[in-house]
Amino acid sequence: MPSGEDDLIARYFRPIAESPASLGLLDDAAVLESSGDDLVITTDAIVEGVHYLVGDPPETIARKALRVNLSDLAAKGAAPVGFLLTLALRKANESWLAAFAGALGEDAATFACPLLGGDTVSTSGPVMISITAFGRVPKGEMVRRHGARSGDIVAVTGTIGDAALGLEILRGGRAAGALPQHRREAEFLVDRYRVPQPRSALAAALRASAGAAMDVSDGLAGDLAKLCAVSGVSATIELAKVPLSVAARAVIAKGASSVEALIAGGDDYEVLCAVPAARWPSLTAAALASGISITEIGTITSGQGAPTFLDASGSVVSLARTSYSHF
Amino acid sequence: MPSGEDDLIARYFRPIAESPASLGLLDDAAVLESSGDDLVITTDAIVEGVHYLVGDPPETIARKALRVNLSDLAAKGAAPVGFLLTLALRKANESWLAAFAGALGEDAATFACPLLGGDTVSTSGPVMISITAFGRVPKGEMVRRHGARSGDIVAVTGTIGDAALGLEILRGGRAAGALPQHRREAEFLVDRYRVPQPRSALAAALRASAGAAMDVSDGLAGDLAKLCAVSGVSATIELAKVPLSVAARAVIAKGASSVEALIAGGDDYEVLCAVPAARWPSLTAAALASGISITEIGTITSGQGAPTFLDASGSVVSLARTSYSHF
Repeated sequence: MPSGEDDLIARYFRPIAESPASLGLLDDAAVLESSGDDLVITTDAIVEGVHYLVGDPPETIARKALRVNLSDLAAKGAAPVGFLLTLALRKANESWLAAFAGALGEDAATFACPLLGGDTVSTSGPVMISITAFGRVPKGEMVRRHGARSGDIVAVTGTIGDAALGLEILRGGRAAGALPQHRREAEFLVDRYRVPQPRSALAAALRASAGAAMDVSDGLAGDLAKLCAVSGVSATIELAKVPLSVAARAVIAKGASSVEALIAGGDDYEVLCAVPAARWPSLTAAALASGISITEIGTITSGQGAPTFLDASGSVVSLARTSYSHF
Repeated sequence: MPSGEDDLIARYFRPIAESPASLGLLDDAAVLESSGDDLVITTDAIVEGVHYLVGDPPETIARKALRVNLSDLAAKGAAPVGFLLTLALRKANESWLAAFAGALGEDAATFACPLLGGDTVSTSGPVMISITAFGRVPKGEMVRRHGARSGDIVAVTGTIGDAALGLEILRGGRAAGALPQHRREAEFLVDRYRVPQPRSALAAALRASAGAAMDVSDGLAGDLAKLCAVSGVSATIELAKVPLSVAARAVIAKGASSVEALIAGGDDYEVLCAVPAARWPSLTAAALASGISITEIGTITSGQGAPTFLDASGSVVSLARTSYSHF
């Protein structure tokens, strides 16, 4: 006599729980067998109206929920093991759930990160999707936030600020006005907001080369400040080196944004790392081989102050804000 | 330059993150070092207005959020390792957070289950607290739901139905009318609803003795049906043997509830298990030693039908409902 909740799990989520560790979602718990590796554990939740918009496609919501966690694992140098899903829904909408679970299953297969278990609850408020993801690293080799040293190269993967602009376009903000004749570029930015690209293919190389790393999710400037604070160092960043997409450059060219604004925007889900100069060539070679761009944007410096940002003329830029905060 | 979210974590949650695995909540992930044990992973979320009531004390909300997960670990025979906390809040209310984190820290210490990490997000809807808890068992020894065999004794810990009555009292339902002169009993039932008692002290004995086990959270009748279905067996339960508290008996005596209703009520967080008769004496001895009551309520039978419930005269009782479902 399956209840509504059990039926929902059986129909939509059991098909994507392919790991033996999930016990077919038929038990109260999942079980991960002991291995010689350390287990890296990360959890990130996304909330309707906060991390994605009401009406966003269920497929992109599912992908974002998993990928923001895969992004953390990648930055920590970990290979995915699996994930738990906690889903708070107002009601069980069959077509929404089918699309959500289908896309989640595709991403789970793509990133070799199967569903291990979870919980489904009802809420009267916004939908919330909380995922806990597990990864493995050889014993003691998780890439930490601390570990940045004076003289290290500061680098980021991909491009910065696209997601913040994508959100602005969806909300009809200034960026939307700047790109009326550039529909393809607008779509690119919206897609960057909705579907992060976790840099999983770079995880092993980060483990081998990076002194410190984290994923950029609350704004490059603020996240770098956190990495520096934990490492007991500072940094100098050249704004002209911050990698921007063609679409982001087009918005800036119209005067509708600035690199200063983009490095304080959220949802990048790129890897920020500090790399000893001697190991930089091997990391860039690995990035090239895996098709992921990585760009040097500055240098770790001694001292404990907030990072310094320089404009093209070498003058210090003062930032109005550095990151996104929920409270 | 700590953001509001970081400041909140530093003030309220870093003090209760005592395990080295938490990395002081200063990284993007926690890391559990490899051991020879299997890792048992469970996740349960509680939602304001669903699993607890608007206006419930933050202390009991915190304890319930952690304990519903500790209850799962206990039923699986696992010793706690630590937990992740995802907190979705409308706003950061300082006094609420201080009380919440204080009680959570107390329970974390009591049950040797430290905070390892988490996420804090904003929501416009009900507060939601999602916890993922980790436990250890010797390799291959997690107590599963399957594993019940014909002839096994069916037993439950503690008493059944108290929490469902406690909720009814808080909502002013029939049970509230039945206990106007019994304030202490009403308080007992409300406390059973608000603060589950995870049977952690029985975990090792369950591992040694139980063929199958699960925690009862959605109603004894429905949860037993699930355990039987996964084990490919059925069961016969004598309703007169279902352990009831003095307070629950008082409500039933007034005609305001029935054992049939109570075995379909939620939030018991007791352990339901199937135990080979030969191992029953050692389990009861362990329960006695740890101060946890455990009661034989019936027998596992062959066949695949839903469990049968018998009244005092031996007649089969038909249940109107067997469990709580969110959808």
